[in-house]
Amino acid sequence: MFNKISIIGCGLIGSSILRAVEEKKLATKISAYDKSSKVIDYLKKNFSVEICRNISDVVKDSDLIVIASPLSSYKEILLSIHTSLKENVILTDTGSAKKEVNKIISNLNLKNVNWIASHPIAGTEYSGPEAGFASLFKNRWCIISADKKVAEDKIKSLENFWSKLGSKTKRMTFEDHDYVLSLTSHLPHAVAYSIVRSAINKEDKFKDDVIQYSAGGLRDFTRIAASDPLMWKDIFIDNSENILKVLDNYSKSLNEIKDAIKIKDSKKLLEIFSSTKKARKEIIEAGQDTDKPGFGRK
Amino acid sequence: MFNKISIIGCGLIGSSILRAVEEKKLATKISAYDKSSKVIDYLKKNFSVEICRNISDVVKDSDLIVIASPLSSYKEILLSIHTSLKENVILTDTGSAKKEVNKIISNLNLKNVNWIASHPIAGTEYSGPEAGFASLFKNRWCIISADKKVAEDKIKSLENFWSKLGSKTKRMTFEDHDYVLSLTSHLPHAVAYSIVRSAINKEDKFKDDVIQYSAGGLRDFTRIAASDPLMWKDIFIDNSENILKVLDNYSKSLNEIKDAIKIKDSKKLLEIFSSTKKARKEIIEAGQDTDKPGFGRK
Repeated sequence: MFNKISIIGCGLIGSSILRAVEEKKLATKISAYDKSSKVIDYLKKNFSVEICRNISDVVKDSDLIVIASPLSSYKEILLSIHTSLKENVILTDTGSAKKEVNKIISNLNLKNVNWIASHPIAGTEYSGPEAGFASLFKNRWCIISADKKVAEDKIKSLENFWSKLGSKTKRMTFEDHDYVLSLTSHLPHAVAYSIVRSAINKEDKFKDDVIQYSAGGLRDFTRIAASDPLMWKDIFIDNSENILKVLDNYSKSLNEIKDAIKIKDSKKLLEIFSSTKKARKEIIEAGQDTDKPGFGRK
Repeated sequence: MFNKISIIGCGLIGSSILRAVEEKKLATKISAYDKSSKVIDYLKKNFSVEICRNISDVVKDSDLIVIASPLSSYKEILLSIHTSLKENVILTDTGSAKKEVNKIISNLNLKNVNWIASHPIAGTEYSGPEAGFASLFKNRWCIISADKKVAEDKIKSLENFWSKLGSKTKRMTFEDHDYVLSLTSHLPHAVAYSIVRSAINKEDKFKDDVIQYSAGGLRDFTRIAASDPLMWKDIFIDNSENILKVLDNYSKSLNEIKDAIKIKDSKKLLEIFSSTKKARKEIIEAGQDTDKPGFGRK
């Protein structure tokens, strides 16, 4: 399929791609890089692919380069590799926000490089190469975004790559991606971080009780709020415009509930709580969650 | 253990108690009531215990009465049963808010009745008798609240009942219970209802995309926001004082994130997101969730 695949950044996502690519033999040569020497050591011990300590070596002669590092590192990475790229290479990433990154890459004016963004909607609350696993992308969506001028066969080739990793692909513009993801992922993370920060307060004398009896809802938020801080800091800065917009709408919806509680408006509360029940049904029908009960779990 | 146990209200929780009590043979006689004739029909088909169509019959000669119906129904139930109660009966419930209910019961001035509140912290996002299962309370906490004047042997007897159902028990005052639960359960539900209501908006042209790509966080909120609307309406009204207080603190915490996003304050965002990672660790250490990755699930 590809002669050489290079992976830059081998945390949860990058190392999972590395595992899948190796397992499924998707390239004759596989090369990986990470700026952390601890990660490099881990990779050398656990993989039989080429592990590079020099970033320009990793991309040399590569047909597909996957950047799987935090958004804030892209610029530096691109400046370090852009003179070492093979002509007609496919350059992709795994980032959760697209518009700003696309601007940076457009401004670099790379010649003979097919920049096609990927966003595999997969992950766990853990980070680092030891948290990765080859089946992470199985049955998950991967959103593909590219400028109109990118050749169709290159996009198809990248879509095929994600299909081999088990993912379903969907094309979206950079702008649409950032708006949809601000609702499905960035808003939930902002909310989860806020709730955990306000509910589990060191100065509250009930702090231990709150942790002990968290099964009534809170624990599900702590899972989301345990995601990689560095990665999320970058996402909130890159997609700030959309996130602030959806946070405003969310605040309105929260105030609607607050107001109904204040005046003990049973009818309104019942209407609000009934409306959200339908959304759950639609998500299960779309195959995005199981209908197995979740709260009773140990 | 008990000669006769009566269960009033046989939805998810009541029917699960009924199943467990029957399976573990915790009483010589078991009697159940529900005001819905549809539920009564279900119970008659699926259980071999006494099913009463008349509420005063269900409590007759009973040693333990469990009210497992919505909070707003308690007053009517108590007014219907209080003249039929056996002397020295233990009267308990399964409600998620305690202070207001306790006031109602105190005002009724019941004689020779041991009112001891229970709150099993167990449940799923499903409701109705067909959703119940006997092991729902296994390894879950059950919070017990009672006035100081209630006899210790009666409290112990009720704690023993919950232990037989597989639960761990913890005593708390009515007031402490309502505050702790407002943080661990009521706030998360208010937030989940708000987020699902604002994110899955019928009028948004991206509605279908939002549902399709909800695996990045949103789907976990839809699970919580699918809980029984009638039950939650009652909880928000009964525990309104605490809920409004914790919602205010939560809004402050949300504004802290909003402000940091607005000025793209990396340092502050990183500090916020790192602080919540610890909370997750504490919840896993307290045995309140597994450390199995959650986001990667199908």
